[in-house]
Order: sequence, then C-alpha cells, then structure tokens
Amino acid sequence: MIYSMCYIPNEELRTNIPVKEYAALLKNPQALLWIDFDGEPDESAEPILTGIFRFHPLAVDDALQETHTPKVDDWGEYVYIVLNAMVFEEADGLSLATKELDIFLGKNFIVTHHDDPIIPLEKARTACLRDKRYTSHGPDHLLYKIIDDLVTDYMPMIEAIDDQIDRVEDEVLVQAAPDTLERIFSLKRILLAMRRIITPQREVLNKLARDDFEVVDPHDRVFFRDIYDHLVRMHDLNESMRDLVSGSLDTYLSVVNNRMNDVMKTLTVITTIFMPISFITGFFGMNFFEPVAGLTTWTSRLAFAIALAVFVSLPIVMYMWMKRRTWV
Amino acid sequence: MIYSMCYIPNEELRTNIPVKEYAALLKNPQALLWIDFDGEPDESAEPILTGIFRFHPLAVDDALQETHTPKVDDWGEYVYIVLNAMVFEEADGLSLATKELDIFLGKNFIVTHHDDPIIPLEKARTACLRDKRYTSHGPDHLLYKIIDDLVTDYMPMIEAIDDQIDRVEDEVLVQAAPDTLERIFSLKRILLAMRRIITPQREVLNKLARDDFEVVDPHDRVFFRDIYDHLVRMHDLNESMRDLVSGSLDTYLSVVNNRMNDVMKTLTVITTIFMPISFITGFFGMNFFEPVAGLTTWTSRLAFAIALAVFVSLPIVMYMWMKRRTWV
Amino acid sequence: MIYSMCYIPNEELRTNIPVKEYAALLKNPQALLWIDFDGEPDESAEPILTGIFRFHPLAVDDALQETHTPKVDDWGEYVYIVLNAMVFEEADGLSLATKELDIFLGKNFIVTHHDDPIIPLEKARTACLRDKRYTSHGPDHLLYKIIDDLVTDYMPMIEAIDDQIDRVEDEVLVQAAPDTLERIFSLKRILLAMRRIITPQREVLNKLARDDFEVVDPHDRVFFRDIYDHLVRMHDLNESMRDLVSGSLDTYLSVVNNRMNDVMKTLTVITTIFMPISFITGFFGMNFFEPVAGLTTWTSRLAFAIALAVFVSLPIVMYMWMKRRTWV
Amino acid sequence: MIYSMCYIPNEELRTNIPVKEYAALLKNPQALLWIDFDGEPDESAEPILTGIFRFHPLAVDDALQETHTPKVDDWGEYVYIVLNAMVFEEADGLSLATKELDIFLGKNFIVTHHDDPIIPLEKARTACLRDKRYTSHGPDHLLYKIIDDLVTDYMPMIEAIDDQIDRVEDEVLVQAAPDTLERIFSLKRILLAMRRIITPQREVLNKLARDDFEVVDPHDRVFFRDIYDHLVRMHDLNESMRDLVSGSLDTYLSVVNNRMNDVMKTLTVITTIFMPISFITGFFGMNFFEPVAGLTTWTSRLAFAIALAVFVSLPIVMYMWMKRRTWV
Amino acid sequence: MIYSMCYIPNEELRTNIPVKEYAALLKNPQALLWIDFDGEPDESAEPILTGIFRFHPLAVDDALQETHTPKVDDWGEYVYIVLNAMVFEEADGLSLATKELDIFLGKNFIVTHHDDPIIPLEKARTACLRDKRYTSHGPDHLLYKIIDDLVTDYMPMIEAIDDQIDRVEDEVLVQAAPDTLERIFSLKRILLAMRRIITPQREVLNKLARDDFEVVDPHDRVFFRDIYDHLVRMHDLNESMRDLVSGSLDTYLSVVNNRMNDVMKTLTVITTIFMPISFITGFFGMNFFEPVAGLTTWTSRLAFAIALAVFVSLPIVMYMWMKRRTWV
Repeated sequence: MIYSMCYIPNEELRTNIPVKEYAALLKNPQALLWIDFDGEPDESAEPILTGIFRFHPLAVDDALQETHTPKVDDWGEYVYIVLNAMVFEEADGLSLATKELDIFLGKNFIVTHHDDPIIPLEKARTACLRDKRYTSHGPDHLLYKIIDDLVTDYMPMIEAIDDQIDRVEDEVLVQAAPDTLERIFSLKRILLAMRRIITPQREVLNKLARDDFEVVDPHDRVFFRDIYDHLVRMHDLNESMRDLVSGSLDTYLSVVNNRMNDVMKTLTVITTIFMPISFITGFFGMNFFEPVAGLTTWTSRLAFAIALAVFVSLPIVMYMWMKRRTWV
Repeated sequence: MIYSMCYIPNEELRTNIPVKEYAALLKNPQALLWIDFDGEPDESAEPILTGIFRFHPLAVDDALQETHTPKVDDWGEYVYIVLNAMVFEEADGLSLATKELDIFLGKNFIVTHHDDPIIPLEKARTACLRDKRYTSHGPDHLLYKIIDDLVTDYMPMIEAIDDQIDRVEDEVLVQAAPDTLERIFSLKRILLAMRRIITPQREVLNKLARDDFEVVDPHDRVFFRDIYDHLVRMHDLNESMRDLVSGSLDTYLSVVNNRMNDVMKTLTVITTIFMPISFITGFFGMNFFEPVAGLTTWTSRLAFAIALAVFVSLPIVMYMWMKRRTWV
Repeated sequence: MIYSMCYIPNEELRTNIPVKEYAALLKNPQALLWIDFDGEPDESAEPILTGIFRFHPLAVDDALQETHTPKVDDWGEYVYIVLNAMVFEEADGLSLATKELDIFLGKNFIVTHHDDPIIPLEKARTACLRDKRYTSHGPDHLLYKIIDDLVTDYMPMIEAIDDQIDRVEDEVLVQAAPDTLERIFSLKRILLAMRRIITPQREVLNKLARDDFEVVDPHDRVFFRDIYDHLVRMHDLNESMRDLVSGSLDTYLSVVNNRMNDVMKTLTVITTIFMPISFITGFFGMNFFEPVAGLTTWTSRLAFAIALAVFVSLPIVMYMWMKRRTWV
Repeated sequence: MIYSMCYIPNEELRTNIPVKEYAALLKNPQALLWIDFDGEPDESAEPILTGIFRFHPLAVDDALQETHTPKVDDWGEYVYIVLNAMVFEEADGLSLATKELDIFLGKNFIVTHHDDPIIPLEKARTACLRDKRYTSHGPDHLLYKIIDDLVTDYMPMIEAIDDQIDRVEDEVLVQAAPDTLERIFSLKRILLAMRRIITPQREVLNKLARDDFEVVDPHDRVFFRDIYDHLVRMHDLNESMRDLVSGSLDTYLSVVNNRMNDVMKTLTVITTIFMPISFITGFFGMNFFEPVAGLTTWTSRLAFAIALAVFVSLPIVMYMWMKRRTWV
Repeated sequence: MIYSMCYIPNEELRTNIPVKEYAALLKNPQALLWIDFDGEPDESAEPILTGIFRFHPLAVDDALQETHTPKVDDWGEYVYIVLNAMVFEEADGLSLATKELDIFLGKNFIVTHHDDPIIPLEKARTACLRDKRYTSHGPDHLLYKIIDDLVTDYMPMIEAIDDQIDRVEDEVLVQAAPDTLERIFSLKRILLAMRRIITPQREVLNKLARDDFEVVDPHDRVFFRDIYDHLVRMHDLNESMRDLVSGSLDTYLSVVNNRMNDVMKTLTVITTIFMPISFITGFFGMNFFEPVAGLTTWTSRLAFAIALAVFVSLPIVMYMWMKRRTWV
C-alpha cells in the first residue's frame, strides 16, 4: 500500500496522489510530499525510489532489505535514516519484537518505508490530515513529529514491563511460583533487547541534533535534542529496571537457597535424632536376650527404664547441641 | 505555591512579589529575582515561564514533566539545569527516592521549579532572607549556594547508609538474622541508585566548572569546581561502600556455606557411624537364632562380647578415619 | 595453483596468462589484472610477489605466513589487506574455522593469496568470467565484489548457528539431553570465535570506507560502507545470539537446579516420614516384651491399636507440617 | 604543631621561624620556605593560610577538611596538591588506612598540611636539615623529594601484603584454616583499597610530569615522571597480586568443593551398601518365622548360608558398580 | 660480563673492546657500537652508563633497578626502552617468569642491560658476529633484529601452553584427574600473566612504529610495525586460548556437577526404595505378634504372601514413579 500526501501552502492538502505526479511535485520547492510505503512489495517500491526520487541504489537496497540497525546516512541532498518501532507482547511468554522504519528526508519530501504496519506512524499520518501545523513547517518538522510519535510509543511498553517487574518482585517474596525464575530471565532478556533498540536510536538522534545536515534547518535541531533527551531518560529507566530484575533474581535465589538449607537441616536433624535411638532398639532386639540365653539382666525392668530414659533424653540433648551450633 | 524574592542593591529585599511585577523587575539589570515554583500546578506555572520569562517551549516542557536525568542545556540568554535531591528512608526497608529540581539561570534571575518540597532549597531560601551575602554577588553565586546546599544534604544520607553497612557487617560475623541477606541486597541496590544520582550531577557540575556560559561569570567557575570535587569524593565514598557491601555478601555466603558444610558432615558422620552397627543389631535380630534353630553358637556369650566390642570400636575407628580425611 | 585474469576495455577477457606477461600488463593503465594464488607453494609465489609486483618484503612475508588478524596496510602505490573466510562445521561437535585471505590492491591489479580454497572467492572468479560488469569499473570495484561475496557467505553460517540455538532452547525446556550443556558451551565458544572474526574485519571495512587510499576512488567508498553496515548488523546478530545462549544456559541451570531440589526434598520427606515410625517398630521389637518378661501391657491389643494409629497419623501430620513450610 | 624551615643561599638553614616573619621571607625570591602544619588545629592554621599566604578560601577549605581524593589544582601563582599516605596494619585483621597530605607549592615556598603525623614526611624533614642538597634546587625539587619519600614508603606495605598472600596460598593447598576464606576476602579488599589510593595519585603525578605549571620548572618534570613510572609499576604489582588472590580463592573453593563431594559420596556409599542388607536382616527378623509359624524352611541353615553370602557379596557388587561409575 | 662489538664500514668487526676506547668510538658517526651488560654488577655498569654514555641518572637508575614495565622514554639524543623476555617452566607446576631487558638506542650505538642471561639476545649477538647484514644498516636496524628475536622467542612458549590446554581439554572429557582443576587454574593464571607481558610491549612497539624519534629512521618504522603486528597476533592467540581454558573449566564443572547429581539421585533412590519396605519388616518384627499374643492372623501365611508381594512391587512402583519424574 502506498499512502501519499502533499502539502502546498495556501492549497488544499492532497492525498492519494498518482505516482506519475510525484516527479512534478518534487520540482516545486514549496511543496512537502510524504510518501509512505506500507508493506508495499519491493517490485513496485523499488522503481519509484530509484527512478523518481533518484536515491542511491545502495540506500534503496538498505531500505528494502529490512535488516539494519538504526543509523543515519548523509547522502547530501537527502538523508537516509533507519529507526525501529518496538512491539511488546505479553501473550504466552513475554517478548519484544522490532519493526524497521526506513526514512528518506529531502528538502521538500519525506519517504517512509516499512514492511509491517506501524501504529505510531499511522497516528502521525492521521494527525497530519487533521492539522496543517505538522506539515506547514517543512519536512524536518514532520520528521520530528514522526520520530517523536515513534519514541513516545515506547513509553507504555516500558510501563507494562515495569508492571511485570512489580508482580515478579511480589511473587518472589511471598510465594515463588514454579515459573517465577523463568519470568525473571525473560524480563532480563527483554530489557537487554530493549537496550539494544534504544541505544543506537539514541545515537541517531544525537547525530540529528548535533551534526550538520543540508536538509535539516539548524534551528530545528533543538527538537531532535528533545527526543534525544527522551531516549536518554528511557535508557536510564531501562538500567534501573535491570537493577530491579537483578535484585529480584538475587532475592529469588536467596529464598530458594534458604529453603533448601532448611530442608537439609531437617534431614540432618531427623537422622541425627533417630539413628542413635534406633540403634538402641536394634540392640535390644538381638537374639542374645532370648529367654533361654540367660542374659536376663540386660532385659530387666531397670534396663528397660534406662532405655526409655535414653529414648527421651538423647533426642533432647542432641537437639540442644544442634541448637547451640545455630542449625535449628 | 510560588515563592518570590527580589534583591536590588541598596534596597530592602522584597518577597511575595506579585506576578505582574516580574516583567518590570527583569528589565532592571541590577536586580536579582528568584522565583521558586514549589509544587505549583502546571497550569499557573506554564504561562509565567513561557510568557514572562520567554523560555523555549521545549525547556518549559522539560521543567514541568519532572522525568529528566540531570543535565545542563545552554539556551544562550539563560541556562536550564536539572538536578536531583535525594531522600533516604529507613522505615520498613531501606529506600532511596529522588526529587527533581529544575533551574533556569539568567543574567539577573533564577527560576527554580519542583513538584515536592525540597528541604535544602528551603534552607537556602531562609538563608537568603537572613543574609544579603548570598544574593549580592549575582545569580550565579546564588546558584552555587543552592547547589552546594543540595549536595551537602547528601552527606547525612551517606552516613546513614554507612551506619547500616556497619550494622550488617557485624551481624554477618556474629549471628546472621534471617533478613540479613535481604538487607545486604537492598544496600547494594541503594548504593547503585545513589551512584546513578551522583554521576550525572557530577557531570553537570563539571560542565558548569569548565564550559563557557554567557550567564556564568568565569571567575565564579571555581565555586562549581568545588562542588564538583565534593561530588567526586561522594562518588569515591560510594565505590568504597559498595566494596564493603560486596565484602559483607562474600562473608555472609561463606558463613552460610560453612554452616551447611558442617550440617552435611554431621549427617554423614552420624550415618556412617550408625548404619554399620545397626546392621549388626539387625543381623543378630534375625530369626535364624531362635532357640529352636540350633545355631546357638551365634548367640553365645562370646559372640555377644564380640558384638559389644564391635559396637564400641567400630564408631571410634570410623570417626578416626574421617578425622584423618579432615572432615570432622 | 595460480588463477589469472586480465580485463582490457574493448578486448576479450584473458585467463591463464603466463607469468612472464604480468610485467607488461602491469604497465598498461587500462588493464585490470587479477592474480589469485590458490594454495600455491611459497617458493613459486614469493618471486612473483617480490620480483614482478615489487611488494615490500615485509608485506610478502605477512601474506605467505597466514597468521595474521584482519588489517589494512597502506603501502602507497598498493594496499595490503588481510581478511578471514569463515568455515562452520556441524559434524561431530560444532566448530568454526577461519581461512586467511591476503589481498594486494593496486591501481590496475588485484592479487589474492590463500592456502586453502575459499568458496566465495571461486564464485567471484566465475562471476567475473561470465559478466564484465564486475571488472569494468576498476580494481576497487572488483575488491568490493570479492569482499561482498566473502561477507555474504557468513550469513548461512549465522543461520545454521541460529538453528542450533533454537534446537537447544527447545531441548532445555522439554527434556535436557546429557550433552545439552556441552552444546550450549560449544555454541557460546563459537559465537565468541565468530565475534573475534567479525570485529576486526568490521574495522578493516571501516578504514576502507573512511580513510584516504591512493588506490581507492573516493566515490567507491560508499560501497565499502555498505559492507561495513553489513558487518555491523552481523555483529549485532552475534550479540543477540549470545544473549539467547546465555538465556538457555540460565534456563538449563535453573531446570537442573529445580530437579535437584526436588530430589533433595523427596529424600528428606521419605526420611522424615519413615525414620520416626521405624523407630517405633524397633521399640516394640525389643526383647523386653518377650512373653516371659512380664511387660505384657506394652504388647496388649490396646497398645497395638495405638501403635497402628501412630503409624498412620504421624506420616500425615509430618507431611502436612512440611506442606505448610512449602517444601512439598 | 607547625614545623618551619627556611633555606636562603649562602645562609644558615633556619628552623622554628616565628609566624610573623613568614610574610617577609615570602618576599625574598631567593628563599625557600617550608611550613609543615602537623596536626595543627584549624583555628591557628586557617589565618596563616588565608592571611599570609593568601590562598583562595576554597583551597584552604579543601586543605582543612581532609576529605579529598588526590588531585592537583592549578591556582596560577601556586599549585594545590592532595596526596595520600598509606598505613597498613596487620594487628587483628588486615586493614589499610589513608592519611591525607595537602601541599601548596609556590615559587619560593612549600606548605604542607596533615592531621596525623606522616612518617615519610618526617624523614624528608630530617633529611633536609642534614643535607642542603634537597633544598638548594628550589621548591619543585623539594616537592619531588617529599612525594618520592611518600611513594617509596608504599613499597614495604606491598611486600607485607605479598607475604600475606604467600602464606594464604600455602594454607589453601595444605590445610585450610577456618579463617582462611576470611583472610582471602580481606586481602582482596585491601588490594582494592590500595588500587583506589594508587590510581588517582598516578594521575596527579602524570599531570605534574606533563602539564605546564607556572611554579614547576619544565626541566624538573622528568623527576615527576620517574615517580609516575614508580606508581605505574605499583599499579601493575597490585593487579598481579589481585590475580594471585583470585587464584587462591579459586583453589580454596575447589578444595572445599572436592572435600564436600567426598563427604557426599561417602554418605551415599555407606547408605547404598548398608540399606539393602539391613532390609534383609529386617526381613528375617519378622515374626512370620517364629518357631510355631511353621515357615521353618525360611530359617533353615541353607537359608542362613545364602543370607550370609548375600551379606558379604552384595556390598562388594555395589561397591564395584559405584567404582565403575567413578564415584569412589 | 660486558659483551662489546663495534662495526665500522669497510673494517673488521671488533669485539671485546676495552672500556676506555668507548668514548673514542662514540665520536665516530660511521661506527655502530653495541655494549651488552649481561649480569654485570651495578658498581661497574653505572660509571660507564653515566660517565661515558652520559645517560640521565634517572634513566640509568631505571635500567639498573630491573623493576619496570615495558616502556619507551625519549631522551632526545637517545631512546630508553624497557622490554621483557618470557621464560616458561613446565617442571612441577606451570609457571611464567619475566626477565627485564633495558635498551639505550643512540645515533651510533645500542646499549643493552639485563641481570640474567637472555637466550634470544645471545642468538642475536652470535648472528651479528656471523653476518654483517644486521649491523650494516645502523642501530635502529640492529634494534629491530634484537626485538624481533625476543618476540619470536615467545612463540614456542605459546605453543607449549597450547599443548597443555589440549591435554587438559582431553582429560576433562575423558577422566578428570584430581589435579585437573588446579592445572586449569594455573593455565588461566599463566595466560593472564602472558597478556600482562605482551600488552605493554605491544604499546612500546606501536610507539616505535608511529612516533617520531630522532634516533629512528622514519623509513625503518615499518619494521617495528611488523613486530607490532606480531604482538597483536599473539595477543589474539592469548585471548583465544583464554576462551579455551574458560571452556575447559565450564566443562569440568558441568562434568563434576553431573556426577554429583548422579550421586545424590542414587542416594535418594536407594533411600526411597528401602526405607518403606524396611519399615514393613520392622512392623512384622514387633513383639505384638509373639505366639502368645494371640494376633496370629497378622502372621498368617496370607499376610506373609502379601508382605512378600509388597516387598517386590513397592520398589518397582517407586522406581517407575521416579523414572517418570526423570530422576533416574
């Protein structure tokens, strides 16, 4: 699908512009043309990018292949930017996916290309239709609007992950479910993945805010710095959340370890208490003390009384000894 | 709440200045105007910041949103600074919170903005009312006073955490409470959080001490360097404390591990000593030696004496064997 | 084996050029000569490199010794480049080997040298025979073609490793085979080795894309930047895969640990339940209760009923106690 | 206590100079005045530093507060340097303390300030009294002497720690004492603390050796580079020692782990051998085989012989099975 | 011992030159004088270095003290270089020692100083006597020869360590000897030590290859770059070997852990199978079932048959239950 939009001052905003009119509009320095290739097959996108916009074949290849890390390439008359949209899924296991968004920014046009629909981009498109403010300040302003929507869209995901962390933190302290550990690990992985998404885009915005591009008005750099600060903040949040997850893991492991120590101590206490007195019952169960054997003093009532006393006192003594060694 | 204060040389220090007079005072290059927005709702703060002080909308947005990491933005005629106050709570679990403080520094004014009351800022305000020394050297001097109070306020928290570490260190060696491990982890987390607070502010002060700002007198930079050194020192203290906490964790784990090893050894010693002799009692308890069975030599007094000797000597032998293998 | 190829505009592409003609062809600035030493013994390669091409003896040594990390050495009239081909083997244990490829790039020639056959290089050779496009733009374009083929050849290996990781991830969750851990470790090692191969080559391409070489046309640098971006992407993929492997290891260890905890708990539960009641059976097995001993109340039917009740109830009570402590 | 010393070429070295004469001596460009505040209370030191020497109040504050990390501050006419003396204590637990030494270096004076007596400084003072060589080359030479003595004084401590490491390494292999682990941890901590002391001073010396200070003769920088090399060497020694301590910890843990494995194996072997044959004795102890019960074949001599054979052979078989699985 | 050698073009190579002739030869710009202090006592070396060669006292001190990390100091008319020879010992435990080599390189001389004999240096000396090629290109070429021999001498050690790693890798998989773990740790330590030796020398060679020294001909820098590449390669090999050792450690730990898990499972299986049926034998061993007690139904043949059935079936049931939980 190709969504197109053309803003010319004092004219009606046009949409659904036929491809053959692109070239004419590009010649108008007053116009602002936004072409959005939304899941458009490469066969139909490629000739437009190469033929009409005359982008370098390597840049077009990069845009069509969808396998690039965020970056800015300055091609002089236009700038090629790769960004990532983030998609967070909570259904059966947490996971974080990325969608690549390729942007070509020129003096009087923006071309965006993506294989899958990107919600914040659609929002930006709708906003432009409703409100001329976004298109009337030139393509770099429109770019700011698009990136800002894209980055702002990360926030609910960060909050959803934060909720997950809160839940895990509670579970760990109260009652660790069998899958708690797995969820901690998956949160760790997601936060790592998120950092991988945020860090290079932060660098892209840093470049847009600092470097000198022919197609970016120096006065508008301050807007990109604003998004940059946003991403710095998200990066910091990410670091803090990773600390929390690490803390949860530490707590989980210490809880499990404590419980296992309890188990081992109980095993030892039970064994230590019953093994000696069981031996004594075995002792008096031997056939030496059969009536005919004549060792009747060993089975007298006094001996029984002593044995009973040992059965009662020995466990108590052992328990106290273990208590003193701070086991119980 | 808006606290305002205006110092004009050779005049009385004015407070509670009506908003409509701000614009007039700003035109007086001799005046020093300090406006403090203390938990003031955005609706009433925003028009003053944008309308009267004419700050850039992005800077005003940053100030009102309260979600930024410490930074300095140079806007030419004014400087926008974000700092963090630190709040340490010992009640039910240790925790460290931050409060954002936004500062606009101009040629003849300071504007501070914060959502929650910040104690060191209130102290600075009171000091200014009492003593003209703080206001008579211009806004950059007043800024120094404010930041110095803010940073000095960290010190008692660092000391409180240091006390907590001392207590944990003692506990670990003498008698580990069940929550010791948890407290070690929470100290670790707090120190990490503190480092996150101190490090970016150190960079902010470094910038104020080194970079060239229109609104900061180069001769006053040395004061910011002094605070910078302070923060460097706090950062070092933080690192040392983190070493101590790591040391406590190591000690704790080795104590727990030693105890568990003791427990396991005891289990093994008890089992090793009693299992063989219990087998012997079982052996002589078998019905082969019933009176009628005719195997009476197995239950003779001699056999009993031998069995008794084994019951006494076998445990001793096994104990000595284990001793030689350095288990007991 | 020496493979040679010479392209001269408007002439037939020549192959199998006799060594003695090299010098003459090198004098033709229109020609593009590609000599590929494929496993050629040093004795015959060395005189050509030193005598005809007049490369510096140190560069020739480097090329013949095959023990260098990827690098670019600028020798003015020619550039010496070392790259690595990657070979991935799945047969009996995973392993990753490298083959060194030495390249000399001049104004009108390329010399490649390698000890073992390198498949992507052979493909590039075949492509040049079929299609003049690769040779008609000069040696730096041909170099781009060669390196591009070499790097593109990494991709199937990365995918094969990715498959292995998927398989390991499934195994870990469903049923850990005895060699799962070993395979996780070998994947870890391979990914580490791959990073060691990719990182220095990325730097080589970065240099080719940015630095000023006499023999590289500045307009062609953009092609090397394209390969550079490719390698950056591969480096990122490598990092992500290493995260996945680390995650698998974490999961594996937690699964094994959980199982071991289960084992220990079972041991403790069984011991805790049976030791006390076994003691009681031992108690009543003592010879004090022989018919003649007169302690007949201890063996009355009531006592037996009580004992039976204990045998049934004690395990239930202990089990419930352990349940409450969340062991079972 | 204030120690003062004044060297004027061709004059007697003066000591115990009254405070009121300082100002006059400072005006003599030929003189070299060394004032050492050794534990002098701030009340008496502050007016001299501020009033007579006219140091900046912030620098004086830094000097009096004794809470700074090593640094050099260039104040133009003088340089303010903070260094640390190191004190190593072996009595009850190893520990490492630092003493701050503040130095002001001017064109014709050195002012040192410290709260506690510092031995190497006293040695330098005594040396100056004995030998004019140290004072006759100007204050930067005297500074070199002082820092050199301070740093040389670290060496015996490094050697003492090295001895401790040797002792621990032996203990770990031969017979780990209960406090070995604790001593390993404390060595680790001390080496970390030492690195914290050495690293910033190395940077201070690096600055003195490279930067351009008004009060340091460029020809004398080579001396500071010499101390810098010394500190680099100490830093390297520190890293090596930390490796040794890590190695000791690894060895300790592996020794302890091996022993615990031995303990567990013994437990399992004993249990595995005795449980089955104990069951058999229990079997034949059942009252089914009472004389009256008529199951006399179960208690015949043949059955007894078989039982005896099992008692002997079963443990052997099990032991061999465990041996084959490489447990014993 | 002092070894001396003097090359003058078109003259015989002189050796064993008397000390008093040094000064005269140094004045001849055509000469190349190499003085090697091989274990020469400081008393006799010091006057030559200070008096005849007029090296700076600090440089001479550095050379005589033998405690420096590799470095290059540019003293203008000469360069002072510290390098390390490496000695690897396999006898009783692996270990790696270093020998310091101090080099002074001037316009027409090289002075080397070392306390212990260094084999590659002796080789270089012998080579110079045999072949004028090494001395005829000036002192920087001779320096290249010396350093190249020194660094080439590392290679057999790296290979010896590689062999050790291979052996350990095999042991770990087949049959871990009791000292395997210790050998893994010592390999780890040696590789760490080797890296400490190689890294600073790599930096020294980097400086020689890049920086501008008065006594090094810019055209000869390429030779030092060659050695630099060599050291880079060794550094890479070292990293790879450290990966292998880490891999061995991982494997060892997983093998040991697996075995311990097996041991624990066996313990649990044996206990779980025999404890319940032992309880039953104890049950029927109680004196309630004495002939006189009248509870004869409990000891009837049917009861016996049931008991026998339980003795056989219960272990089978429990074993299958454990099998299903994937323990056995």
